[in-house]
Amino acid sequence: MHDIATRVWNHKWKIDPIVRSLIDTDFYKLLMCQSVFRNHPTTQVTFSLINRSTHIPLAHLIDESELREQLDHVRTLSLTRGESTWLRGNTFYGKRQMFTPAFMEWFEQLRLPPYDLQRVGDQYELTFAGTWPEVMLWEIPALAILMELRSRAVLATMGRFELQVLYARAMTRVWEKVERLRPLENLRLADFGTRRRHGFLWQDWCVQAMQEGLGDNFTGTSNCLIAKNRDVEAIGTNAHELPMVYAALAPDDAALARAPYDVLADWHEEHSGNLRIILPDTYGTQGFLDNAPDWLAGWTGIRIDSGDPATGAETAIRWWQSRGEDPRDKLIIFSDGLDVDKICALHAQFSGRVRVSFGWGTLLTNDFRGLVADDALAPFSLVCKAVEADGRATVKLSDNPKKAMGPAAEIERYKRVFGVGRQKAMEVVV
Amino acid sequence: MHDIATRVWNHKWKIDPIVRSLIDTDFYKLLMCQSVFRNHPTTQVTFSLINRSTHIPLAHLIDESELREQLDHVRTLSLTRGESTWLRGNTFYGKRQMFTPAFMEWFEQLRLPPYDLQRVGDQYELTFAGTWPEVMLWEIPALAILMELRSRAVLATMGRFELQVLYARAMTRVWEKVERLRPLENLRLADFGTRRRHGFLWQDWCVQAMQEGLGDNFTGTSNCLIAKNRDVEAIGTNAHELPMVYAALAPDDAALARAPYDVLADWHEEHSGNLRIILPDTYGTQGFLDNAPDWLAGWTGIRIDSGDPATGAETAIRWWQSRGEDPRDKLIIFSDGLDVDKICALHAQFSGRVRVSFGWGTLLTNDFRGLVADDALAPFSLVCKAVEADGRATVKLSDNPKKAMGPAAEIERYKRVFGVGRQKAMEVVV
Repeated sequence: MHDIATRVWNHKWKIDPIVRSLIDTDFYKLLMCQSVFRNHPTTQVTFSLINRSTHIPLAHLIDESELREQLDHVRTLSLTRGESTWLRGNTFYGKRQMFTPAFMEWFEQLRLPPYDLQRVGDQYELTFAGTWPEVMLWEIPALAILMELRSRAVLATMGRFELQVLYARAMTRVWEKVERLRPLENLRLADFGTRRRHGFLWQDWCVQAMQEGLGDNFTGTSNCLIAKNRDVEAIGTNAHELPMVYAALAPDDAALARAPYDVLADWHEEHSGNLRIILPDTYGTQGFLDNAPDWLAGWTGIRIDSGDPATGAETAIRWWQSRGEDPRDKLIIFSDGLDVDKICALHAQFSGRVRVSFGWGTLLTNDFRGLVADDALAPFSLVCKAVEADGRATVKLSDNPKKAMGPAAEIERYKRVFGVGRQKAMEVVV
Repeated sequence: MHDIATRVWNHKWKIDPIVRSLIDTDFYKLLMCQSVFRNHPTTQVTFSLINRSTHIPLAHLIDESELREQLDHVRTLSLTRGESTWLRGNTFYGKRQMFTPAFMEWFEQLRLPPYDLQRVGDQYELTFAGTWPEVMLWEIPALAILMELRSRAVLATMGRFELQVLYARAMTRVWEKVERLRPLENLRLADFGTRRRHGFLWQDWCVQAMQEGLGDNFTGTSNCLIAKNRDVEAIGTNAHELPMVYAALAPDDAALARAPYDVLADWHEEHSGNLRIILPDTYGTQGFLDNAPDWLAGWTGIRIDSGDPATGAETAIRWWQSRGEDPRDKLIIFSDGLDVDKICALHAQFSGRVRVSFGWGTLLTNDFRGLVADDALAPFSLVCKAVEADGRATVKLSDNPKKAMGPAAEIERYKRVFGVGRQKAMEVVV
């Protein structure tokens, strides 16, 4: 028996929207947005798409009008009553009313601001300009749209059974990963794969597979919509955009040197417990920790998002010890380019010495490597970053020079101010 | 949107019937049934289940009441109007009205006769006794039911995602086989996998995969219901049960020696062209061909169903040559224990020398080897054979002594009558 109504309904859509909800985004975006809404509501920023994998000719692969349709669709979205209820009523990290009434009222009225799209050669220039709290919410949907349009372009060439077998293979691969992770004792692992997912439904499937396969060891997802629908925890804290914008706004070198700590001072006021997670690598982890005020050593944990993760974790452990803290009470969150081998190795090395948690991204929700001809579905490194704040360029150094961004002169200035010496370059895959 | 009606309807079924149609059976069963209905309508036969894989404890794996429910359900089935229309109206092997009005009237009234089920140790004794045209139609549904109940018993222990990944892996495997077969020029391949299939829906999926993957090189399926639903050719000719019962009915050694040719003489009257396929191995291929009347050399082809297939095919080619026939006009159908390697090798060896066709069975529709713990879904060798005709035991020798069946004294007598010497034993996997 066909469900005729459903079939007719499905065919009524003019497009198949990739992003169908304003909370189909990472939880930390909303946390940061609230902080920005409170502390910097009028700061003007520009976010820009950056395809680090320049060998992927996005403008050849993705039709411009389809891209515009998808971006336009996101601009029609507003928070639904149920989404608002979930955000207002939910307990996040054990805390009720994480989002203030003032923020929720603003969010309920929000529509995403305009975008600017230009085709330049075989790439797109996609930028978003406006007030920080509004513009910042474009990052995740913009990335998810580009990633999924690229997937769809490849899938459009395939037959029905080829498609079924493609997903059969991909599902098998995810499940084999789950089976390898299952024996790890006290594993704490969350999905961080929204931005570079193969597609929304695929991310949703991956989350369900982790729920069934890992049980309580799967701690949740960064994706609010999936967390809501699948009744799992929404996970996330803060990201590089905070120190990057704070730093860009600094009027002089002294203020610049203070900026990363100012970010966390604001955060300290707003959040406690598991939300007090330091992201130390924006301008070099070692210098950040060496110069950190003592109150930061009391924070719950550190997220390692660039450089060699084991080295970063050892640095963090030594830092806590030097500040009289017991690392066994501390949390280290690994979130950079993880896959099963790395997760197993890091778990073996650090489990018991610190509390360990993993934020697994692209290679959870977009591991289609080797599954189609020319590896046309392999994930690639696409980001959408704040590049300007109140007219001044932003800079990111990170612990891997290949992830650095910003004008060359500014990069040199930041390196000097933050005392960053030679860094070890590591290939950025995803 | 849920289709509530469908959901409620599905949950109304007391059981999930495995066989839901009298034409969910092999096409050659219906062809043979018509021949038997014409030539031996009152012969009393007994068919019996034989589990050649005695290490599979069917009575432990399969609940007796579930087995009875499934068998009872088959006894409620009768030919539907649409099924009858399809049989009456279809063109089989280019011929209209393959089934006579008299046979169709009988078939439309048919309900399958009673069965006898006993549990003996860890096996079931399942027998069907009655007139030949009725009893013979139990073979395929009985096998399909036992195979699928065994699958279900294993699947019942698995979680939702484990199941999804199981089928993902199995689909991937089938598709990889299809991809290996695709480059073979002039491949002619049909599905013969009804009797030992993993399940009905799985066979149906395999057929669709072959349709999409192999196009016209996929010639059809032995399963009438799937042929009807998927609009492909129904494939099949005749089987060992005809010579086995004819032989058992023979009053003396001279009549016994004639029996296999009597079968084909009856068939010769009824069928022409592609349906004139010799199945020579019931009592030894070499002797059968040496003693065959000349009119048999004029038949279209030979089906190789036991022994080493390449040896059997070379024997057939030499025989045609010795009778002044051009093998390039002849058809050889391989149908014993095929998988991709064997298909590729036989295709390479014989393509161009004869017309080659493949009837691919168990390892198409039931290759779940290695996919679950303890290999609990591996296919096994279950048959349902005529063991008695008018009170006399049947005998099968075949070209592989491991496939021989019947009372030992009778096997010796048959070997003497048919001049069968030493045979090479080959392991029977499926």
